[in-house]
Amino acid sequence: MSPKITTELLKQLRQVMKSPTYVQEPLQAYIVPSGDAHQSEYIAPCDCRRAFISGFDGSAGTAIVTEQHAAMWTDGRYFLQAAHQMDNNWTLMKMGLKDTPTQEDWLVSVLPEGSKVGVDPFIIPADQWKRMSKALRIAGHDLVPVKENLIDTIWTDCPQRPCKPLMTLDLSYTGVSWRDKIVALRSKMAERKVLWFVVTALDEVAWLFNLRGSDVEYNPVFFAYAVIGMNTIRLFIDGDRMMDPAVREHLQLDSTLEPEFKIQVMPYGSILSELQAVGAGLSPKEKVWLSDKASYALTEAIPKAYRYLTPYTPICIAKAVKNALETEGMRRAHIKDAVALCELFNWLEKEVPKGTVTEIIAADKAEEFRSQQKGFVELSFATISSTGPNGAIIHYKPVPETNRTLSVNEIYLLDSGAQYRDGTTDVTRTMHFGTPSAYEKECFTYVLKGHIAVSAAIFPNGTKGHLLDSFARSALWDCGLDYLHGTGHGVGSFLNVHEGPCGISYKTFADEPLEAGMIVSDEPGYYEDGSFGIRIENVVLVIPAETKYNFKNRGSLTFEPLTLVPIQTKMIDVNLLTQKECNWVNDYHQKCREVIGAELERQGRHEALRWLIQETEPLVRVQ
Amino acid sequence: MSPKITTELLKQLRQVMKSPTYVQEPLQAYIVPSGDAHQSEYIAPCDCRRAFISGFDGSAGTAIVTEQHAAMWTDGRYFLQAAHQMDNNWTLMKMGLKDTPTQEDWLVSVLPEGSKVGVDPFIIPADQWKRMSKALRIAGHDLVPVKENLIDTIWTDCPQRPCKPLMTLDLSYTGVSWRDKIVALRSKMAERKVLWFVVTALDEVAWLFNLRGSDVEYNPVFFAYAVIGMNTIRLFIDGDRMMDPAVREHLQLDSTLEPEFKIQVMPYGSILSELQAVGAGLSPKEKVWLSDKASYALTEAIPKAYRYLTPYTPICIAKAVKNALETEGMRRAHIKDAVALCELFNWLEKEVPKGTVTEIIAADKAEEFRSQQKGFVELSFATISSTGPNGAIIHYKPVPETNRTLSVNEIYLLDSGAQYRDGTTDVTRTMHFGTPSAYEKECFTYVLKGHIAVSAAIFPNGTKGHLLDSFARSALWDCGLDYLHGTGHGVGSFLNVHEGPCGISYKTFADEPLEAGMIVSDEPGYYEDGSFGIRIENVVLVIPAETKYNFKNRGSLTFEPLTLVPIQTKMIDVNLLTQKECNWVNDYHQKCREVIGAELERQGRHEALRWLIQETEPLVRVQ
Repeated sequence: MSPKITTELLKQLRQVMKSPTYVQEPLQAYIVPSGDAHQSEYIAPCDCRRAFISGFDGSAGTAIVTEQHAAMWTDGRYFLQAAHQMDNNWTLMKMGLKDTPTQEDWLVSVLPEGSKVGVDPFIIPADQWKRMSKALRIAGHDLVPVKENLIDTIWTDCPQRPCKPLMTLDLSYTGVSWRDKIVALRSKMAERKVLWFVVTALDEVAWLFNLRGSDVEYNPVFFAYAVIGMNTIRLFIDGDRMMDPAVREHLQLDSTLEPEFKIQVMPYGSILSELQAVGAGLSPKEKVWLSDKASYALTEAIPKAYRYLTPYTPICIAKAVKNALETEGMRRAHIKDAVALCELFNWLEKEVPKGTVTEIIAADKAEEFRSQQKGFVELSFATISSTGPNGAIIHYKPVPETNRTLSVNEIYLLDSGAQYRDGTTDVTRTMHFGTPSAYEKECFTYVLKGHIAVSAAIFPNGTKGHLLDSFARSALWDCGLDYLHGTGHGVGSFLNVHEGPCGISYKTFADEPLEAGMIVSDEPGYYEDGSFGIRIENVVLVIPAETKYNFKNRGSLTFEPLTLVPIQTKMIDVNLLTQKECNWVNDYHQKCREVIGAELERQGRHEALRWLIQETEPLVRVQ
Repeated sequence: MSPKITTELLKQLRQVMKSPTYVQEPLQAYIVPSGDAHQSEYIAPCDCRRAFISGFDGSAGTAIVTEQHAAMWTDGRYFLQAAHQMDNNWTLMKMGLKDTPTQEDWLVSVLPEGSKVGVDPFIIPADQWKRMSKALRIAGHDLVPVKENLIDTIWTDCPQRPCKPLMTLDLSYTGVSWRDKIVALRSKMAERKVLWFVVTALDEVAWLFNLRGSDVEYNPVFFAYAVIGMNTIRLFIDGDRMMDPAVREHLQLDSTLEPEFKIQVMPYGSILSELQAVGAGLSPKEKVWLSDKASYALTEAIPKAYRYLTPYTPICIAKAVKNALETEGMRRAHIKDAVALCELFNWLEKEVPKGTVTEIIAADKAEEFRSQQKGFVELSFATISSTGPNGAIIHYKPVPETNRTLSVNEIYLLDSGAQYRDGTTDVTRTMHFGTPSAYEKECFTYVLKGHIAVSAAIFPNGTKGHLLDSFARSALWDCGLDYLHGTGHGVGSFLNVHEGPCGISYKTFADEPLEAGMIVSDEPGYYEDGSFGIRIENVVLVIPAETKYNFKNRGSLTFEPLTLVPIQTKMIDVNLLTQKECNWVNDYHQKCREVIGAELERQGRHEALRWLIQETEPLVRVQ
């Protein structure tokens, strides 16, 4: 992977930063955030402005270009990747390390007095605007909204915004109709005494209307906004997708409906002016509810006194708690996904020793096996197929320049998942196709102990996920090891593979308490730069736990793994496990045998079934 | 303990809330926070306004009185105590429980439209003012500063503000002179480009000048403020304490000093006008540094654009990291404290079976033994001496009405500590003087497992204490149990027994990372209302840990117990301990024998020594 040469692009950007065509006053700095106008994590090609200007295409990062400098902030998952993809024009700012300045502090340290710092108000979330703008103001600078995106002005071959057909989801998948979701939302609005709710996140629009799209790779969403009033529903969406009879029928666009369920379809681009009109028509005490992560542009459309901002919207919270039909769908999806991975790993065991399997071939093979499963739609993220040192690049994606051949001498890490009509999967397994070293086994076993500590944890109702994060690290910490990423994220139901409002991380303090029905990942890891990467990830469902006592009648919760793929026992140093941990592995593998074994049998995949049986032999701990 | 009858007082308060003598417009609500003008946790009698109006005298709580209601917010430590001490005029708001409204939400729900809510601007911290004022404004109400404290207007026999003599601490205790502390502070000020620093917390003033006082019971502090400029030092303090030759000598008040170390002594009450003068004289870009917990009144004295507010001041952070001499002092104090407790427990073992020892007698005896130790100054907080059901009242203090006799049938919990010239102690032991039930032992052992999990934890440099909190709860959680308080707090060095900026709590998100030299408590518990309370508390020092590996060269930390008092093995169900936990107890007891044994021997306390030896017999775990 050679870095993108950005000298010319930066020169052009610095020119438009001073051009009266685009800015009222010359800018001394321009911020290029990661997201799109919906603050999506995964974005369409037309929104990959930060990757375009810098070359760094990881999922998280913010670029800031000043007259003299170009700097990129990203987190521990991407330190190596960013360093590889960016040329010498760029300084890498490693977030999470002690000496790394915040964007604000850095700007203040490099800017001349009274500088103007520009940003696209549609791309920057309101909460970030507020923080950044305050810090700059205190230091005598100004954060200014720049209407036209300056990257777009120099991006001559910028692709078009996608506008793909929609898919409708019936009650057998969603469990709740969109009408009932609107009713529930309005009741939350009434509770908070707000009259309007603005849906800005793409997965929230998709969830609310029981629709799916494919405008963004890996995420079954579509570009749209919605504004829900107590008696009106406005859906802002482009293209002829609303002409599709199935969609019209699903949304009852042509039916005689009670007016409060009649959906008004409006152009995507009209959201700002419509919202401004809503804002202008408000009487005192009338409030508009927005996420505090909605764009600055949309937030500003509502006068400050009328805004009701929350870190998580009621849709985000409702979406996170899966109902019985969604949970069943997630179970089905994970069974199919496990079948595909048993096939893959069985195939790899045979093929890797031949020296013909590269990371890309393995990733493609994983997709091939998944695509044979019923209801497969697409992958849920770019497959991380990484062997040896590539495994230490936490969000690595193999490309021809880095593509390494799997061998019997290196650890192989595969983090992959898919979108099925009934659910979303995300699973990481770390394998060795030869004989792992004692040190590799030791590290793997610490990671496994952390994985089990979270998966088997019992905790009171109302506990926030971040309180569980240290359980995943304790065994590593004991030996002076750690990993520089969170332990888990929420997972959508045939929706985004990363979703809020819950998670398991030392960083996430604003997470909502875990509730039965929520689904998160459990994925501790350990990475040695230049050598190997280890991660063990299951998707787990929050379920009620039976406990001996019940303090204050609060009830307890624990996790049930939805992912049912063998954890390679060859990598485990059994003597580092407690008996309880050993039992956990054996019970887990017994369940894999039963559930996935039955499905492999049903699908007539006998060779993969034999592989599964062999991989799930019980561990025996020497006392 | 019978509740205080507050009907008449509330009537009087509601009258002054409407009286034009005190308020410009009638108030619909008046907030009575817990603290004094320095946001102290422990306060002088003249500042116990919340206790005066409500009867509830726990260390944390906020009262709000409206025309119709009187409500008290407090946390889990005080639910029972507050319920006992308040009459039916009061509604108890149990903080931390799911359905308890915040003060803001409650006010909004009960106030008539456009209400005025009053508060003393010297008592409310600026950060709380900001939050409360914003929430009220959004709901159409106003938070208004009321110059005269309305409680004081109806408190006819309010005691005088104390003004006791000062004590000077020389370098052998503090390790650093006040001049060097001023130099270090000014260098932090220069780093942040601020010209002035306002010292508002009493323990910060005491620490900065290496002075101690006794204006507030249990906390060796004195009423004062300081304002430090780059070339000036102003100390705001009343009385003739500055006439004491030792103090004059210590502060070099009569020496010919470089002007930047010359201390100007000013009246305590002149802080506001002096600060307003500082505020008025600032040029653009000149900043004044205050804690964001400083009072609203002082914060407002500095125009907004000139304020530099941080959650923790540089003094607070420097004070938390004890130097070698302070650490040695803390060790000495804890050895003396352990000697006193060995004497006490030996005495209790003999006396309790006679049925003559009450909670108060036991507490007095503990104080008697402590006062025999060299350098004893006073207790560091009101002794929690509680047996049976009283043990479940987390911050219980025995009074004649509740005073229970210790017996061989009940669990006894003693949480106590002292101020010695060389350090501050805080220790909790839970004992049974007869035969504990299997259930009592089970609960005790879970608490012990939590205590050990924190004490023995190894974690990377830079870890915040709140990430360790769940370790203390895990064994309890596994059985559906928990406790409704944090796990640990910072401890001062011959200063406040509770201090920031570090701690171990599920609630504390703004804590600073733990560093070698910091000192915190480790005190998980378990409480059954109406039955018993269990808590095991040591004060522990953060020290570097040796680990097998060293990820990213970050280094690791762990804890060393400073408290060396036997943990009653009779209460332990050894079979619930792992071998590692069992070893921890045995190693700890071995150290108690060695260190405290030697001191008991030296002090000729042979009976207590025999008790220590017997109580530190190694546990044997049946495999």
